[in-house]
Amino acid sequence: MASPVASAALKARVRRPSMLKKLCQPQDLLHHFPNGSYIGWSGFTGVGYPKKMPTFLADHVEKNGLQGQLKYTLFVGASSGAETENRWAGLDMIERRSPHQVGKAISKGINEGRIKFFDKHLSMFPVDLVYGFYTKDRPSNKLDVVVVEATAIKEDGSIVPGASVGATPELVQLADKIIIEVNTSIPSFEGLHDITMTDLPPRRKPYLIMGVEDRIGTTSIPIDPEKVVGVLHSDYPDQTAPNTAADASSKAIAEHIIEFWEHEVSRGRLPDNLLPIQSGIGNIANAVIGGLAGSKFQNLTVWTEVIQDTFLDLFDSGKLEFATATSVRFSPDGFKRFYDNWEHYHNKLLLRSQQVSNSPEIIRRLGVIGMNTPVEVDIYAHANSTCVMGSRMLNGLGGSADFLRSSKYSIMHTPSTRPSKTDPHGVSCIVPMCTHIDQTEHDLDVVVTECGLADVRGLSPRERARVIINKCAHDVYKPILTEYFEKAEFECLRKGMGHQPHLLWNSFDMHKALVEKGSMAKVEWK
Amino acid sequence: MASPVASAALKARVRRPSMLKKLCQPQDLLHHFPNGSYIGWSGFTGVGYPKKMPTFLADHVEKNGLQGQLKYTLFVGASSGAETENRWAGLDMIERRSPHQVGKAISKGINEGRIKFFDKHLSMFPVDLVYGFYTKDRPSNKLDVVVVEATAIKEDGSIVPGASVGATPELVQLADKIIIEVNTSIPSFEGLHDITMTDLPPRRKPYLIMGVEDRIGTTSIPIDPEKVVGVLHSDYPDQTAPNTAADASSKAIAEHIIEFWEHEVSRGRLPDNLLPIQSGIGNIANAVIGGLAGSKFQNLTVWTEVIQDTFLDLFDSGKLEFATATSVRFSPDGFKRFYDNWEHYHNKLLLRSQQVSNSPEIIRRLGVIGMNTPVEVDIYAHANSTCVMGSRMLNGLGGSADFLRSSKYSIMHTPSTRPSKTDPHGVSCIVPMCTHIDQTEHDLDVVVTECGLADVRGLSPRERARVIINKCAHDVYKPILTEYFEKAEFECLRKGMGHQPHLLWNSFDMHKALVEKGSMAKVEWK
Repeated sequence: MASPVASAALKARVRRPSMLKKLCQPQDLLHHFPNGSYIGWSGFTGVGYPKKMPTFLADHVEKNGLQGQLKYTLFVGASSGAETENRWAGLDMIERRSPHQVGKAISKGINEGRIKFFDKHLSMFPVDLVYGFYTKDRPSNKLDVVVVEATAIKEDGSIVPGASVGATPELVQLADKIIIEVNTSIPSFEGLHDITMTDLPPRRKPYLIMGVEDRIGTTSIPIDPEKVVGVLHSDYPDQTAPNTAADASSKAIAEHIIEFWEHEVSRGRLPDNLLPIQSGIGNIANAVIGGLAGSKFQNLTVWTEVIQDTFLDLFDSGKLEFATATSVRFSPDGFKRFYDNWEHYHNKLLLRSQQVSNSPEIIRRLGVIGMNTPVEVDIYAHANSTCVMGSRMLNGLGGSADFLRSSKYSIMHTPSTRPSKTDPHGVSCIVPMCTHIDQTEHDLDVVVTECGLADVRGLSPRERARVIINKCAHDVYKPILTEYFEKAEFECLRKGMGHQPHLLWNSFDMHKALVEKGSMAKVEWK
Repeated sequence: MASPVASAALKARVRRPSMLKKLCQPQDLLHHFPNGSYIGWSGFTGVGYPKKMPTFLADHVEKNGLQGQLKYTLFVGASSGAETENRWAGLDMIERRSPHQVGKAISKGINEGRIKFFDKHLSMFPVDLVYGFYTKDRPSNKLDVVVVEATAIKEDGSIVPGASVGATPELVQLADKIIIEVNTSIPSFEGLHDITMTDLPPRRKPYLIMGVEDRIGTTSIPIDPEKVVGVLHSDYPDQTAPNTAADASSKAIAEHIIEFWEHEVSRGRLPDNLLPIQSGIGNIANAVIGGLAGSKFQNLTVWTEVIQDTFLDLFDSGKLEFATATSVRFSPDGFKRFYDNWEHYHNKLLLRSQQVSNSPEIIRRLGVIGMNTPVEVDIYAHANSTCVMGSRMLNGLGGSADFLRSSKYSIMHTPSTRPSKTDPHGVSCIVPMCTHIDQTEHDLDVVVTECGLADVRGLSPRERARVIINKCAHDVYKPILTEYFEKAEFECLRKGMGHQPHLLWNSFDMHKALVEKGSMAKVEWK
């Protein structure tokens, strides 16, 4: 193979000469990807993923009509870029995928049964991988080839990731062969990461993190240089989308949450500067962080999974002291703002592996305030985070349960309704019984919609149901849910089985009304 | 009040003179228990609970016909003795109870709606208590009075618990007043405990435990002596029942599990001496531990919630090196054996608070092998641990989810069927959809019945369903569950919603057949 010439930009990033000698083109590496390979990619929530090799392989399949003939088991910390994994799905290149995904083609492939997908707590996925749980039926327990994006390679051969760490430490630990894509279209992120590798029990040690800013690792990921089969020069940035703006409903939710925190501070259950905040993805999350920028809280800290544009506003408001996560997923404008003001931001941020960012050990120790948006919540405070109508996969569990189980405050926020095709309030997000359960009644402290906030701490299930219906359900659904609950309560107490009353044969009748009549509001309790 | 005279036995146990001055009779303390009080008791799984004060109060209510007029909110780490909490329930003395209970009268009170009960992860309950979450609507955030059993009081006023630690450290931290029952009918357990108290975030520290035998605390629970309003002399031991014997079904389950461990060792995924074992309560758990005594495994360790009689056999077999838990709940014969051979056992045991024994931080770090028995498991590996028919509470969540979420191996073991009134196999423990979900599909690695073992690691839901039905379901239910699954798969894939196929309106039809026709086997899929 004829090695390409390394540009000055690339030479400035690759400080180990032997790695520069491995510089090649994607086509030189094609033979490492036979059909049926187990593949790992760096990346998390659509940033820090490899671009050149996956795109080349997709082009190769497309040009040569190889759809369905080159299929891979693909492991990425969470979602990758749409132009890579979603395109692969569209080209029938994915046999199996875990633990999370985003994209229409991949979701279609999963729900039509062509892609075998399983979701797992993002904190556990990399560990189970290192245990050999996901390669247990292979002769070697290894992944065939792992492709990782780096923004620099250090003298010792270790790599500096880009905008995410994700599961990269564990993926390279488990790799037979490694391909490194050095991306010079974005700055080197050197110094922004805190990297720890995964040891096996009984040799595992505590994570000695007692504050969001604590460093316990190195600034780069160690790599076995003999495993590196090629280095590619990558030349375009992460393909992210603009942020979702907060609407009136999400602003109302944010106001309820901030009022709740003020109450908790006034009762001495939260410090004046709160506790480290975890915030998910989406417009409600953005509204909450936006609301904090306008609040009276000061000296805030963030321990979360993904840092988004609104956190830049919170930094700029002077209220946010430090934020740590496993990825920074800014919009294109957000990345520009971040790079243009690097000196202002870089000492206030730290990126860790997803095993650490989502670690129940640390989340519980720090007393994190965890927040997430579900598909639906039921009257007893179980929540569905993944499967619509119990069956159709959206994106996967993500870190929702890592945070909601272990946080000091576990907050589920959702609009009270969503539109169906024929009714602007056709879907109630508060239901009698969730059709799929990812978060249990034992995990949630607070449920909040634009209508109000239900604080269910210390309540029995029947008390919970009354509070959730009265505070959170939309006016259209309050009488409907009350009727279900009161019928269930009457029937079950009478039979001496009324701890958590349900009319088991009617518990999904609202969902049935949605399917058959176009709106959950058209339910009739028999 | 006329103080009773301290016996020599009591004097030998109470080494702080000011505490002896507080010696009194239960009737002297009655005024600390007005109607509506928030009360805490020591105790866990029916050992180490206070006996004199609760029994006196029950007698008082009974003698004076005060049923329903003296009602309390009662917090105990887990279950207490039947002659105390269950008798209280029978006398309508419990307004609210958390987080776990055992007894016919208390379960009846909960399911008939007279007792407000909520269950919570046992590791979290004491922490949420210290956060003030369960006393948030009270003026003081405190518990009115906490009654604890001790086997000794040290010079500094700290107490040495008996056969359990449970939530006692947090209960006394939160107490306005403390009553100590010193029990001289059992030996002093001094040296057998490792006690840590609960600090609040952001000041919380790691649990520096890296092996089952590691000590990080003190041998007694510090007490604010000014809070102690009385010391009682207690003179009878914990009222425990004999152990459940292993039957043929549980022995078959144990064999499958031990064979699985042998396989994992042979593949290098488990060390030769396994990893710390957690084992629940009941005949399957006893069979597994019994099976280990006859296995080739050596140098075993145990990190669990409750230590039972079978562990004494495992010690005696020479295969068990060390065991730690939050309680030792032996049968009366087991306690005798334990006390008679104190020198042989006491250096191999350590009792910790339930926050530590059930700590996700430590369970995950140590790579514990977690095992539990559910009400039912579904074909996608969700499990119900608490509510029969979705509504009727059994005992509560306990530590099941603490262990199953965080263990390296999460194993759910159950007989494949249970009898209904008219059919010896009328209830299948493998169902299409659980009627209540405490453990999610993201938490379980292995499901095992006497029929076989389903290893679901890394499988997509549809793969999981096939393995669970084929390996675990009883022969009567294999075709029934297969028919459900295949219909659901066909319908959902066709609609592009087949990630986790369900016939939502029929998902509880097996339960309906049980109620209406006496057996789940009489289901007919429409």
